[in-house]
Amino acid sequence: MLEASEVGNTMSKAEFKEVEPQLRVDLVNAQYDLRDADFGVLLFVAGDDRVAGNEVVNRINEWMDARFIQTHVMGPLSGEESMRPRFWRVWRDMPPKGRIGLMAGGIMRLLNENLAGDLSDEQYEHAIDHLEQMQESLVAEGTLVIKIFLHTPAKKQRKRMKKAEGNKDEGWRIDQRDWAMLDLLEESGAKLEQLLRRTSVAGAPWSVIEATNRRYRDVAVARTILNAITARLTEDAPAGVAVSDQLFSPGERQATVLDTVDLARTTDKATYDKELNSLQREVHGLARQARDRGLATVLAFEGWDAAGKGGAIRRITQALEAGDYRVISTAAPTQEELKYHYLWRFWRDLPPAGRFVIYDRTWYGRVLVERIEGFATAAQWQRAYDEINDFEDQLVERGIYVAKFWLHISAEEQLARFQARENTPEKAHKITEEDYRNRERWDEYVQAVDQMVLRTSSTDAPWHIIAANDKLSARLEVLDHVRSGLRKALRKLP
Amino acid sequence: MLEASEVGNTMSKAEFKEVEPQLRVDLVNAQYDLRDADFGVLLFVAGDDRVAGNEVVNRINEWMDARFIQTHVMGPLSGEESMRPRFWRVWRDMPPKGRIGLMAGGIMRLLNENLAGDLSDEQYEHAIDHLEQMQESLVAEGTLVIKIFLHTPAKKQRKRMKKAEGNKDEGWRIDQRDWAMLDLLEESGAKLEQLLRRTSVAGAPWSVIEATNRRYRDVAVARTILNAITARLTEDAPAGVAVSDQLFSPGERQATVLDTVDLARTTDKATYDKELNSLQREVHGLARQARDRGLATVLAFEGWDAAGKGGAIRRITQALEAGDYRVISTAAPTQEELKYHYLWRFWRDLPPAGRFVIYDRTWYGRVLVERIEGFATAAQWQRAYDEINDFEDQLVERGIYVAKFWLHISAEEQLARFQARENTPEKAHKITEEDYRNRERWDEYVQAVDQMVLRTSSTDAPWHIIAANDKLSARLEVLDHVRSGLRKALRKLP
Repeated sequence: MLEASEVGNTMSKAEFKEVEPQLRVDLVNAQYDLRDADFGVLLFVAGDDRVAGNEVVNRINEWMDARFIQTHVMGPLSGEESMRPRFWRVWRDMPPKGRIGLMAGGIMRLLNENLAGDLSDEQYEHAIDHLEQMQESLVAEGTLVIKIFLHTPAKKQRKRMKKAEGNKDEGWRIDQRDWAMLDLLEESGAKLEQLLRRTSVAGAPWSVIEATNRRYRDVAVARTILNAITARLTEDAPAGVAVSDQLFSPGERQATVLDTVDLARTTDKATYDKELNSLQREVHGLARQARDRGLATVLAFEGWDAAGKGGAIRRITQALEAGDYRVISTAAPTQEELKYHYLWRFWRDLPPAGRFVIYDRTWYGRVLVERIEGFATAAQWQRAYDEINDFEDQLVERGIYVAKFWLHISAEEQLARFQARENTPEKAHKITEEDYRNRERWDEYVQAVDQMVLRTSSTDAPWHIIAANDKLSARLEVLDHVRSGLRKALRKLP
Repeated sequence: MLEASEVGNTMSKAEFKEVEPQLRVDLVNAQYDLRDADFGVLLFVAGDDRVAGNEVVNRINEWMDARFIQTHVMGPLSGEESMRPRFWRVWRDMPPKGRIGLMAGGIMRLLNENLAGDLSDEQYEHAIDHLEQMQESLVAEGTLVIKIFLHTPAKKQRKRMKKAEGNKDEGWRIDQRDWAMLDLLEESGAKLEQLLRRTSVAGAPWSVIEATNRRYRDVAVARTILNAITARLTEDAPAGVAVSDQLFSPGERQATVLDTVDLARTTDKATYDKELNSLQREVHGLARQARDRGLATVLAFEGWDAAGKGGAIRRITQALEAGDYRVISTAAPTQEELKYHYLWRFWRDLPPAGRFVIYDRTWYGRVLVERIEGFATAAQWQRAYDEINDFEDQLVERGIYVAKFWLHISAEEQLARFQARENTPEKAHKITEEDYRNRERWDEYVQAVDQMVLRTSSTDAPWHIIAANDKLSARLEVLDHVRSGLRKALRKLP
C-alpha cells in the first residue's frame, strides 16, 4: 500500500501560496465549530519519514488554534507510563468531546520495538489486537479517529539526507536514528504494510500521504483533517464512516496511482509474437511445476470496460493445460447469490492445490461498481477493504499465489473501442447504454481505483496497474507478471 | 467463564415432558417463518463435552425440520478442504437467507490442533483473527450468528465415562479420544477460556450452557436458538444485537451464578476478630512485597446496594500503608467525564507499579445499571463485554493483579438493612427512594450479574461471588481471596 502512494504529487510555491490562507481559515473555523460538537477528534500522525513527521506536527500546530489541540509525541515510555499497560498514555491523553488530540509516532514505535527485540512477537500481536479493539470501541462510541501516515520512499530520503549532511546549516538535523530507521524500513517494508493493514479498522483507515514534496504533503494533511471534521460536523459522514479521500478539487492537480503508468507504450507485432511465444512457454513450464508441487494460483482481473481483460486472460489460459484452470466471469450476483454474503461466491470458487482460478471481475466490485452505483452503503464498502484484505490474507497464508491486475486505458481510447465494437457486427452486442453511462462517472472511478489500490495492495497480493491502450504490450506485461510471480511463489514453497 | 456456568441447573423428567411438545412446535414454526426472512442463521455448536456435543446435534436435528437445516461436523480437514484456506469449508457451507447452517465442533478442533502442535502459535493466532473478522463481517451483513458452547466439568465427565465403560450396553461409546480430551481440558482450561473470549464478537457471543443434566441442556439449547431467531424475526433484536440470555420464564427454575453461594454462612465475633487480625497481617506483608517488587493491584467491587462493599474495602485498606493505595468511589459520571469514552476514567486511575487501586463500583456499571436503566443501548452494553475483557487483558498482560468481587445478599436482607439504616440517624442519608426503586428490578439485575460473570470471568481476572448476608464472614472471605491472589501473583513475577 505504501508503494502505491508513490505517484509523484507535487505542489508549486505559487499554488501553495494561493491555497494556504483559505486553508488556515477553514481549519481554525472547523476547530471552533468542533468545540460544541458531541465528539472528540483523535488524530494519529505517523510515517516512515521522521523529518516529515516532525515538520507536519509543527505545521498542524502552526495552522490550528493551539488552545483546542493537544499534541503528544509517543516517545520512549516514561517511568510513569512504563508502569502501566502500553496504551495507558493514549487513554490518559484522550481528547474530550469538542477537542483534538494529536498523537505522533506511536505505530512506528510499536514496530521498531518489535524489530529491536524489546517487544516479543506475542506482545506485538497482543498490542495490535488491543489497538484494533481500542479504535473500534472509540469509533463506535463516537470519537472521530483520523489517521495519517506519511510516506517517502527510502531512496528519496537517503538522497535528501546526504544532501543535508553536506550542508553546514542543516547537517545537525540528521542523526544516526534517521539512517538506522531507513535501513530498517527497507528490510521490513512488508511487516510495516501488514501493521498498517491490521490497524486500519472500519471508520478509521490509515490515509497514506505522499510526503516527498513538502507543500503537497502539508496541504494534503490539512485537507485530510479538515474534510474529516467538516464531513462529520455536517453529517455528510456519520459516526463510523470515513470521509472520501478526494482532497483536491478537479481544478487542482492530484495524481493517482493510474497516473504512474505510461499509456503511450506500444509493442510492434513481430516483437509481440516472439515474446508472447517465449512467455507462454515459460508460464506453461511454471504451471506444470505448480501442479506437481501443489501451488494454487488466484489471478484477479479488473479494469475499465473494453480495456481488454478477456484478451489478456486468454493469453494466459493458452499457456495452461485445460484441466488446470477455470475462468470465473463475475456478473451481477444472481438471485441465488444475493442470498449470501458478497464474498461467498468468490470463496466457493477458490482453486484446489496445483490449479489456477482466474476471476474476470472480482470481489473488488464491492469498492468499485457497488460503491459508485450505491448498491453498497458507505459503511459497507468502507468495511470491505478490511474484509477483502482479510480474505486475501487467508489465501496468502495458505500458500496461494495471488495477483491482481487493473487494466488501464484512457477515456479516449475507451470511446474509440466502443465505437469500433459498434461497427463490428459480432462485437456490437458487447456495447450497451450502460457502458456509456459508466463513462460519465470516470472521475469517480479513478478515485475509487486509487483508493482501492492504496488500501489493498500488499507485498504478497500486489496490484499490477497495466498500461492497456496498446493491447499487445498489455498482454505481454500481464504474462510477464504472472511468470515472475509464479517463479517467486514456487521458490517460496517449502 | 466456564466455571461460572457450573451452577447446578437440572430439569426433571416431568418438567421436560411438559415443555418439550410446545418447544418443538415453536422451533418448527420459527423455521417456517425464517424461510421468508432476509437473513440466514449460522449456528455454531461446540463444547468441552464430546458426548453432549453429539447428543445435542442429534437432538436439534430431531426437533427441527431437516429440510431447512444443514448440519456440518467439522472433522479433520478432508483432502478437498485441506487444499484451501482453513475457513473455506465454513464459507462453502454457509447458510443462505432463510436457512440454518449448523457447524459442530470447529472451535475445539482449532484448539486441539494447536495443542497437538499441528498448528503453530502463529497460525493459531491468525486463525483466531480471521474467525473474528469473519463473524464481524457476517453479523454486519445481516447473518444471525448463534454460538452455543456446552460445558460439563471434567470431573463429572470422568465419573460419567467410568460408569459407562463398566456398562455392557454403553461402553463401546467411549473411546480413547474422550479420555485424551479430558486430560487436555484440565491442562488447558485457561487457553480455552481465552479462545472463547477472543472469538466472542459483539452481536455473536458464545452462550455457555451447562451440559451436566441432559434435559436442562437440551431445553436450554433449543430455547437459545428459538429466542435468537424469534427476537430477530420480530425485530426485538435487530441485526448485530444478541438476544438476552433469559431462557426460562420466572415460573421455571433456572439457576444463576448467584445461586452458587451459601447465604446462610456466618462467623462468630471471636473467630472473626482472630482471623481478621491474621489475614490483615498477612496481606500487609504481601502488600509490602508487592511494593518492593513492583506488583500493581486492581480490586474491583460490585454488589447489591447495602451489601457491605465499603466495610469490606475498609478491612483491606486497614492492612495497607496509607501511601500504597487509593480507593476510587465511582458515582454517576460527571459532566466532564461524560465528554470521554466510558472507560476513560477507569484507565486514568490505574495504579503505578507496587500500588493498589480499589474501585468501589466500576466499569461494570456499563452492563449493570446502564444496561438496566437504559443509559446504554443494547448494542453498547453488549459490545461492552468485549471492551471490558480487552481492558482487563491489558492489565493482566502488564502483570497487574486483578480481582473482582460481587457482594451478594438476599432481597430480604437488603430490605432489613435499608430499614435499619433509616432508623440510624447517621446512616439515614444513605438510603434514598432510588434504592427502593432499584429493588423492583432485582430479577433483571440477577440476570445481568449472571451474564456479566459468565462473559467476563477468566482465570487471570476472576470474579469472586461473596456470600454477604453475614458481614463478618464476607469480609474474611474477601481478605482471603486478596491474600491468595496476591501470593499467586507474586509467585508469577519474573
